[in-house]
Amino acid sequence: MYSFNSKLRVRYYETDKMGIVHHSNYVRYYEYARMEMMMNLGLSYGTMEKEGVMMPVISVSSRYIKPAYYEDELVVRVILNDLPTAKICFCYEIFNQHGDLINKGETVLSFTNIATGRPCRPPQRLTDILKKVI
Amino acid sequence: MYSFNSKLRVRYYETDKMGIVHHSNYVRYYEYARMEMMMNLGLSYGTMEKEGVMMPVISVSSRYIKPAYYEDELVVRVILNDLPTAKICFCYEIFNQHGDLINKGETVLSFTNIATGRPCRPPQRLTDILKKVI
Amino acid sequence: MYSFNSKLRVRYYETDKMGIVHHSNYVRYYEYARMEMMMNLGLSYGTMEKEGVMMPVISVSSRYIKPAYYEDELVVRVILNDLPTAKICFCYEIFNQHGDLINKGETVLSFTNIATGRPCRPPQRLTDILKKVI
Amino acid sequence: MYSFNSKLRVRYYETDKMGIVHHSNYVRYYEYARMEMMMNLGLSYGTMEKEGVMMPVISVSSRYIKPAYYEDELVVRVILNDLPTAKICFCYEIFNQHGDLINKGETVLSFTNIATGRPCRPPQRLTDILKKVI
Repeated sequence: MYSFNSKLRVRYYETDKMGIVHHSNYVRYYEYARMEMMMNLGLSYGTMEKEGVMMPVISVSSRYIKPAYYEDELVVRVILNDLPTAKICFCYEIFNQHGDLINKGETVLSFTNIATGRPCRPPQRLTDILKKVI
Repeated sequence: MYSFNSKLRVRYYETDKMGIVHHSNYVRYYEYARMEMMMNLGLSYGTMEKEGVMMPVISVSSRYIKPAYYEDELVVRVILNDLPTAKICFCYEIFNQHGDLINKGETVLSFTNIATGRPCRPPQRLTDILKKVI
Repeated sequence: MYSFNSKLRVRYYETDKMGIVHHSNYVRYYEYARMEMMMNLGLSYGTMEKEGVMMPVISVSSRYIKPAYYEDELVVRVILNDLPTAKICFCYEIFNQHGDLINKGETVLSFTNIATGRPCRPPQRLTDILKKVI
Repeated sequence: MYSFNSKLRVRYYETDKMGIVHHSNYVRYYEYARMEMMMNLGLSYGTMEKEGVMMPVISVSSRYIKPAYYEDELVVRVILNDLPTAKICFCYEIFNQHGDLINKGETVLSFTNIATGRPCRPPQRLTDILKKVI
């Protein structure tokens, strides 16, 4: 198991007329946090795309436990439980500045060869690094 | 069971650098479609909020089957299988202009009294209308 | 002069904690409306990109006169005063369902050859059509 | 004159099918940066709203000089030239990690009493702090 914490502050445009963060933004927080994790492991997602592999999302689930408010300082924990196959599963836990767990989620992504549009194996470099940390 | 189809055309800002609709937008399409459904039933969600009840989302799940592209004409089908209790569950199926099923999803929302912030029953008017159609 | 009216209904996620449409969304409404206008003239912007020409935005200005609210039915009027050169200027006026002018704006876009990344002339087909209507 | 620099990294969902940051997001970057500036001066915008004053945007202008790409590290400089009256004008300059100026913009906001919806003076605390730094 490997986990990584990212911080972000809620932006005004992410709120809605209920006065809380619109639920669609959590999916964006997940993306932000897993890309920060990849960058921190030395595997920028942007570089992976330049090298010909993209990772489209094939499923998302999210459970909203408490609301988040404008200016909240959130911690998004990304958790990897397993090495990637043709797919990779990321779990998420979001905490606010009071330490409350406000959201839990999961995304599954596939590895896709950009040139052919076909599923492919994860880049060797990614697997090597993940083997060391998981 | 009650279902309702909404149409929408993919907007440019909804695409991302993969050239397809960013996955977070499907959650927004769900919202759009269920609010169109409510309006079509004579129960505008905006009016419901003015009358003191809001419906925060408590869970979302989404499965991405095929990508959607800029200018695609999507049909978002919203399906209600059960009458609301303290919660209400909406299912979604999204089709493109070729009739392909490109996405399936589900959201659960709760009824909340805006004044107290506490869970509450669904408005009687909503239950009455849904009893007729489901 | 040529003008074209598009309709749109304000979506929930476009609102912010002030209870009104977040100001950044008007820029998206402009885009939506000018692309509806192009499609209506028989010149889909998506097709133009497929044919090798894109139109990046080089400036935007927007003046917010009255707020827009959730479920408002807006009319976005796009106005073309001049034939395109290497650039094209679109003006916008947004009205709510009461006929109030709530926003005015302007965007300038350039024509760019996607293959070379260089500025280019507008596609002949676009100029021909605009000559007939302006 | 007072200026403040904020940093942000371009997020994936902010890109569009042109492969660059969608132009509407710069308006959101401006908002982010001016709120960071206010927080840094000890004047959180969230607190100002809780104390009864909001700052709706009344005009925006933006000039796009160079594109921004996924993972770019942007610096958003906010510049205040004048003390606020019933309005306040913020200027912006955005630089990428190579030091290129990629965007310039300006927003004018008004001070509004939330309870009455009427224009009001800027909070005394804001004026006092700005007097010291401008």
